Amino acid sequence: MSFYFEILKTKNKARAGILHTPHGDIPTPVFAPVGTAATVKAVPPRDLTEMGATLVLSNTYHLHLRPGSELVRDMGGLHAFMGWNGPILTDSGGFQVFSLADINKIDEDGVTFRSHLDGSKHRFTPESSIKIQENLGADIIMCFDECPLPTDRRIVERAVDRTMRWATRCRDAHPDNSVQAVFGIQQGGIFEDLRLQCSEHLRTLDFPGYAVGGLAVGESKGQMYSTLDFAVPMLPDHKPRYLMGVGAPEDLAEAIVRGIDIFDCVLPTRIARHGAAFTYDGTINMGNLAHARDGRPIDPECDCYTCQHFTRAYVRHLVKAKELLAHYLLSVHNIRFLIRHVRAMRSSILDGSIDQYVESFLGRYLATG
Amino acid sequence: MSFYFEILKTKNKARAGILHTPHGDIPTPVFAPVGTAATVKAVPPRDLTEMGATLVLSNTYHLHLRPGSELVRDMGGLHAFMGWNGPILTDSGGFQVFSLADINKIDEDGVTFRSHLDGSKHRFTPESSIKIQENLGADIIMCFDECPLPTDRRIVERAVDRTMRWATRCRDAHPDNSVQAVFGIQQGGIFEDLRLQCSEHLRTLDFPGYAVGGLAVGESKGQMYSTLDFAVPMLPDHKPRYLMGVGAPEDLAEAIVRGIDIFDCVLPTRIARHGAAFTYDGTINMGNLAHARDGRPIDPECDCYTCQHFTRAYVRHLVKAKELLAHYLLSVHNIRFLIRHVRAMRSSILDGSIDQYVESFLGRYLATG
Repeated sequence: MSFYFEILKTKNKARAGILHTPHGDIPTPVFAPVGTAATVKAVPPRDLTEMGATLVLSNTYHLHLRPGSELVRDMGGLHAFMGWNGPILTDSGGFQVFSLADINKIDEDGVTFRSHLDGSKHRFTPESSIKIQENLGADIIMCFDECPLPTDRRIVERAVDRTMRWATRCRDAHPDNSVQAVFGIQQGGIFEDLRLQCSEHLRTLDFPGYAVGGLAVGESKGQMYSTLDFAVPMLPDHKPRYLMGVGAPEDLAEAIVRGIDIFDCVLPTRIARHGAAFTYDGTINMGNLAHARDGRPIDPECDCYTCQHFTRAYVRHLVKAKELLAHYLLSVHNIRFLIRHVRAMRSSILDGSIDQYVESFLGRYLATG
Repeated sequence: MSFYFEILKTKNKARAGILHTPHGDIPTPVFAPVGTAATVKAVPPRDLTEMGATLVLSNTYHLHLRPGSELVRDMGGLHAFMGWNGPILTDSGGFQVFSLADINKIDEDGVTFRSHLDGSKHRFTPESSIKIQENLGADIIMCFDECPLPTDRRIVERAVDRTMRWATRCRDAHPDNSVQAVFGIQQGGIFEDLRLQCSEHLRTLDFPGYAVGGLAVGESKGQMYSTLDFAVPMLPDHKPRYLMGVGAPEDLAEAIVRGIDIFDCVLPTRIARHGAAFTYDGTINMGNLAHARDGRPIDPECDCYTCQHFTRAYVRHLVKAKELLAHYLLSVHNIRFLIRHVRAMRSSILDGSIDQYVESFLGRYLATG
């Protein structure tokens, strides 16, 4: 059994476990850095290993457009291609089609769209998304879904209907989960009845894991948390639960106490490219003059390469000089920060102190953030 | 004696030695990657160590403008600031003032110029250049010189006169070479009598090392090599000789057989940012379609991180997708290529086979390059 989920301990809704995959074990909860185009931007894979990454996400939409999934398959699959031998998750391409591409047509069969790169015409269906993800060869793959704005009930209703039918087709297109496990995606926006309807359908398909989709895309934080309050318990207890596209430190805390196991987000690498760094006292802009002669590391409590070797003054200099090394040093720090944060929550689930950890973390982080 | 030069073996004009510095020994001949703004672009210092770099160059002009040499001094000097504890060389700022800045006035005392960054007004004199370099704290520092186009005799004559007088002032401003060794710079363009006149003056100042300046700035390769034929023997035998700004693989070979010990060049990192890679069969453009499905490393003979872990197909994908990791992977490979090349020449000086190495290298490299 190369793919299975083991829950070691629960504390209220929060769970600490291990997700076993063909490319290694993933201690959960886990934060996955995003390698959109088969690279976590600016970070070599050996650094990901060093900073404790145990899961990396790549984007089906981007890899389909460039370099193409057949090429990746022919070069030995995504693990070999990008030199990352740990677990990989690919999304379905659905979210990117709806957020990045020019959509020509959405019909019951699939979506026709134009590439944001060169305007070329492409079509994704549930079956083609699965096929592309099979070519890429990630350990965890996702059902092709329709991801609507979460607060417009009429639009969400239609998207839920379609997402359910497409989930069945993805399940049929990929019935064997022993090498690549396909996760179902719960949609339904902020509406409890729609989330329930979607979950009940997905449960009949018995996926090896489930994602909560369509959050962190425009609703308020309060709406996201209250949606998680009812949406997460609708998913099977003994399967991993993945909150797609969420990675703000406070959201990780709020979602883990609500029972989420897996996260991914571009946030740590994206804010790095804008010169920002996570700290326990909030996100700081390293370009600020205040750091110009600061001989301390970004975060004195951090064990990452950046904080072990460089001062705020140096990082600020690199940011101001627009040096490439700034992207690397800040990405390394920011990813490590989220991994440490999620690991600390895992430990506090295991020893029962999760509520205290979250209260203390949020108190400090949000006070100055 | 923290700074001295030891010649282990000579073969015709070529020399293999060790340059001892307060921050470690430099086996010579040596190629120094350039960290213009206190960072070798895209490459963390620990990677420089791994790829065998034993000397890094930084630019006085750039660091004076940003973040300022007093700031670097107050943060513990350049070694601590940039997290590179090996030997560092800083240039004098002269070349950049003449090539990058808007010059307002050159007079006997120094040069007034406007920053290429923000137009702010600055002045370098021999004394201020030395003072800035003392603030930065590199192991090897350089005399402030005037660097003319090498082929206009009237202009070169005037520059040589001034360079000689400025060398005396740099010597007087920095008489103690025990912690930071100041090198004299021979100018004279492609003119033998001017190179000789300059060298004779510099020898009276008894510098701990000498640079050949003003080459690779517009003359032909033939002119550069024939200038080296006469210019290098004018310098003292027992002192290290540094050819500034030269790093093309064929030039390293031609200059080492003519008795040069030290090199620096932006070439490996600059061509990396343009998607190009050194190989023994010439420089190749990694963006070419020919590499799209090539499962081989850039250079099957290379031991760098890039060649040990990634295919040409992957590097090409990163180049085409304009991914930051392309800069890193290609810079690592290109720097390592030059370090390996220069090390191979050092070994072949030690075992007497330098002529065969160079003939074989140039035959292959230039045949397809």
